[in-house]
Amino acid sequence: MNTPFEIYPIGFIRKTKRRTEIEIEGDFIDALLGLDSFSHIYVLYWFHQNDTPDKRKTLRVHPRKNTQNPLTGVFATRSPARPNLLALHLCRMLSITSSRIRIDDIDARDGSPVIDIKCYIPPKIPLENVQVPDWISR
Amino acid sequence: MNTPFEIYPIGFIRKTKRRTEIEIEGDFIDALLGLDSFSHIYVLYWFHQNDTPDKRKTLRVHPRKNTQNPLTGVFATRSPARPNLLALHLCRMLSITSSRIRIDDIDARDGSPVIDIKCYIPPKIPLENVQVPDWISR
Repeated sequence: MNTPFEIYPIGFIRKTKRRTEIEIEGDFIDALLGLDSFSHIYVLYWFHQNDTPDKRKTLRVHPRKNTQNPLTGVFATRSPARPNLLALHLCRMLSITSSRIRIDDIDARDGSPVIDIKCYIPPKIPLENVQVPDWISR
Repeated sequence: MNTPFEIYPIGFIRKTKRRTEIEIEGDFIDALLGLDSFSHIYVLYWFHQNDTPDKRKTLRVHPRKNTQNPLTGVFATRSPARPNLLALHLCRMLSITSSRIRIDDIDARDGSPVIDIKCYIPPKIPLENVQVPDWISR
């Protein structure tokens, strides 16, 4: 087993019925400078409730927990059970204050630790011939 | 300081002049099943050469190391110095064998640890009104 890398929360998802926000921890607020010039961000968060040896050993799943979908490797899915419990979501920002980013939506739970935010830069050349399996559109 | 989460390499970037590949570690090969039905993947890797306390404390940079670009928070950049040294790249797969994924290109170094792979699913509704700051197109 290789030596692990350590990651720390830089914020947390705050969800109410009305709004979804990322609350940035005080130590990291300076890292938001200029983010308001972008419309979209990648939010990387941690499936903290799945951080168990068993969930980390999950290598194949039926996508969306639907047994009619073919057994699929977790790297070919967005499964929340996977070797490293990383989640990725592309979000639209609705507003940003000194420590809070309001976003349109995210499939994270209230309290999920956020581990990185990256600006979204569209590809210079639009992606061509994008292919996905049939179960995606079911 | 919160307790860190631990992440482990699931593979490594292998770069030669002719080809760029992700070599998946043996324990994780089963997680590739079905990935060949996709054309594109998100590759998450680790800026392992930057994993120092100083680089992790970097909160603002001049993007692309160009001092003519405005001082910008690292969350509004793809800076390889940031609190958690996560890198994200959307890649086209050229071929896939049992343990190797050949990709078109990635701005990682030979030997960079790969920590997750996720299938790329295009948004159901294309992104609208995408905005980026001026320095992106310089």
